[in-house]
Amino acid sequence: MTSVGEKVSNKQVIFRNFVSGFPKESDMYVTTRTIKLTAPEGSNAVLVKNLYLSIDPFLIVLMRPPSNNLSQLGTFIPGSPLSGYGMAKVLESGHPNFKEGDLVWGITRWEEYSLLTETDTLFKIQHADVPLSYYTGILGMPGMTAYVGFYEICSPKKGEYVFVSAASGAVGQLVGQFAKLLGCYVVGSAGSQEKVELLKSKFGFDKAFNYKEEHDLDAALKRYFPEGIDIYFDNVGGKTLDTVLLNMRDKGRIAVCGMISQYNLDEPEGLKNSMCILIKRIRMEGFHINYHYHLYPKFLDTVLPYIREGKIVYVEDIDEGLESGPAALVGLFHGRNVGKKVVVVARE
Amino acid sequence: MTSVGEKVSNKQVIFRNFVSGFPKESDMYVTTRTIKLTAPEGSNAVLVKNLYLSIDPFLIVLMRPPSNNLSQLGTFIPGSPLSGYGMAKVLESGHPNFKEGDLVWGITRWEEYSLLTETDTLFKIQHADVPLSYYTGILGMPGMTAYVGFYEICSPKKGEYVFVSAASGAVGQLVGQFAKLLGCYVVGSAGSQEKVELLKSKFGFDKAFNYKEEHDLDAALKRYFPEGIDIYFDNVGGKTLDTVLLNMRDKGRIAVCGMISQYNLDEPEGLKNSMCILIKRIRMEGFHINYHYHLYPKFLDTVLPYIREGKIVYVEDIDEGLESGPAALVGLFHGRNVGKKVVVVARE
Repeated sequence: MTSVGEKVSNKQVIFRNFVSGFPKESDMYVTTRTIKLTAPEGSNAVLVKNLYLSIDPFLIVLMRPPSNNLSQLGTFIPGSPLSGYGMAKVLESGHPNFKEGDLVWGITRWEEYSLLTETDTLFKIQHADVPLSYYTGILGMPGMTAYVGFYEICSPKKGEYVFVSAASGAVGQLVGQFAKLLGCYVVGSAGSQEKVELLKSKFGFDKAFNYKEEHDLDAALKRYFPEGIDIYFDNVGGKTLDTVLLNMRDKGRIAVCGMISQYNLDEPEGLKNSMCILIKRIRMEGFHINYHYHLYPKFLDTVLPYIREGKIVYVEDIDEGLESGPAALVGLFHGRNVGKKVVVVARE
Repeated sequence: MTSVGEKVSNKQVIFRNFVSGFPKESDMYVTTRTIKLTAPEGSNAVLVKNLYLSIDPFLIVLMRPPSNNLSQLGTFIPGSPLSGYGMAKVLESGHPNFKEGDLVWGITRWEEYSLLTETDTLFKIQHADVPLSYYTGILGMPGMTAYVGFYEICSPKKGEYVFVSAASGAVGQLVGQFAKLLGCYVVGSAGSQEKVELLKSKFGFDKAFNYKEEHDLDAALKRYFPEGIDIYFDNVGGKTLDTVLLNMRDKGRIAVCGMISQYNLDEPEGLKNSMCILIKRIRMEGFHINYHYHLYPKFLDTVLPYIREGKIVYVEDIDEGLESGPAALVGLFHGRNVGKKVVVVARE
C-alpha cells in the first residue's frame, strides 16, 4: 500500500534504441527508478497508478527516428519510458477534471506510476461495470478506431461486401462485428488457424482465411468475393492492399487504418495497382483516431449496450506484469497475440 | 451539300489493333465507306454530321484488349471506327429529344457521319454564342471533369495550396483557373517551356515548372510548396503521384482524374509512399465524369458567365481534317499538343 506524498520505487520499461526491421526486446529494458507520489502544487498534472497497458502496432512508428515521412506521430526518447495508451487510477490531481480515485484511460507511460502533464487524451471512465481492461481495447482507442473507421470513413451500407485484414486483432474483430450488425457480408484474414476459427465461431464473420496458407491472395479474394469488395478495412497495407485493389468493386471504399506489414521495412513495398483507384472510382482514406475523440460519447452510447447485451464480444490476450511489455510488443509484429494485446501492470 | 436519305461516302478512322506501349498511327487507318443518311424509322437513333472530335488520353485505354483491370471502360473493336467525344449537328432523329438542325455534343464516332443509337451521353447544345469546339473541351467532358474533380472531389477551400499536373491540358488549365477564382495558391507542371509560359501568363497560375527539367521532383515540390500541398489534381499518376504523396499536407486530398504516365506501360510503376495516406490522413479518390452529368446544368450556369466575362480562358490546339485524327491522338502521349486537342471534321 502506497500513499500520496511518499517516495516509492517505480518500475519502468525504457526505450533504448531502434535500428531497423522488427522491434526486438533488446530495444527496450526494464529498470526501477523512484517517484514522489505527488502532483506538484499549482500544476495541471495528474498522478496515476497504471493498471493496464495497451500494446499497439503504432508504437513501432514512435520507435523510429523522426523522418519527414512519419514525424507527425512523434518519437520515443532513448533513456525514457515508452508511452502509449493505458488504463489507470488517479492518485492525486492538479487538474480540475480529475480527482483522486478516478479511473481514467488515455496516453500514459510504461511504468508503475506516471505523472501526466498532457491530459488532452485522458478520459474519465464513467462505466466500471465492464472489465476495466476494455478501456485499452473495445472501449478505448482500438474500439474508437474500429467505430470511426467503419462508420465514418467507409460509409457502409447494409448488404455490402466487407473485407478486414488482421481481423482478429484489437480493431479488426470489432470492425467485423459492426459490419455484421449492419447486415454486411464479412470476410476476415488472419495469420493462424486458431485466429480463423475465432473469427468464424466467436465474432460471426461469414468467412475467414489464414493468409499464410493462401499463396495466391488474388485467387483467394476472388473465391471469397466473387462479386468483389465494397469496403476494405486495411490494417496491414503492402501486398495485401495491392491485391485488394484488384478486387474492389466500383465506388469501393478503403479505410487506411494501419499498415503493419510496412512498419518494419526500410523500403516500403510499392502499390502496383493504383490505376484501380481511377478505373473503379475508389475512395481511399487514411485517418487517425486522435482527431475523432469528440465522437467518444456517441460511441459509448452505441457500444456499451452491445457489450452488456452480448451482441458484441471482445477477445483479449493478457500478459501479467510490466516486465512482459517488451515481449508483448515484439510479439505483435510476429502475430503472436490472439486478440487485443494487454499488459497488466496492477489489478487495482 | 448532302440531303437526308441520300447515300454518301463516309470517311472513317478505323481501329486496326494495339499491342503495347504508346499508340502508333499504324494502330489506326483512314478509309471511306458509304452511309445512307437516314435514321431508321421507329428507332431512337440519331443521325449526325460530326463537326469536332475531342482527342482524349482515355482513348488509349479503349485500345487495349479487355482485361480484368480496365474492362469497365469498354474496348474498341478492330475494323470499326474509333469512338469518343465530339460535337455534331443532327441531320435526322428518331429520338424525341433531338431534331434536325440541333447541335449536340457527346459520344460519337471518328467518321464524317454517324448513326448514334446510344444517346444517353448526347447533350443538346443550348448556347451557340461561344465557339462550338468548346463543347469538346471547356463546355464538354473535360470542362465537367475539371469542375467535378475540383469542386466535388477535392473539397477546396480558399487559400489552400493546389498542385495540378498536365496543367496546360484540356482539364488542367481549367482546374488551375477554378482554383485561382476560389483564392487558392496554384502551381502547375507541364512538359515544355512554352506550356509553362502559358500557365503563368494566360491561365494565371502562381507558379509553373517544366517537369522534364526538374530531375529531382521532390526538391522542386518542396521549393514550390514549402508548406506542402493541400490538393493534388492528378492527371498523370506514377512517379509524380508518388512524389506528391511525400509532399502532401495533413488532411490533403487527391483527385485521381487520369494517369497518363501509366497508360502505355504493361507493368505499372509502384507507389512506394502509400504510408503517407495513413500518416497524413490523405483522401485519394478516383472519379469518372460519366456519373456526374446531372451536374451539367449547374456547371453551365457557373462556367458560361466566366467565359463571357473573360474570367476564364481556354486554349485549344486544333488540327484540320478527320485524317489528322491518328496523329493527333498519338501526339497526345508525347505531349505535342498545347492545350485541348481538337480535330475539325467539318466547320458546319
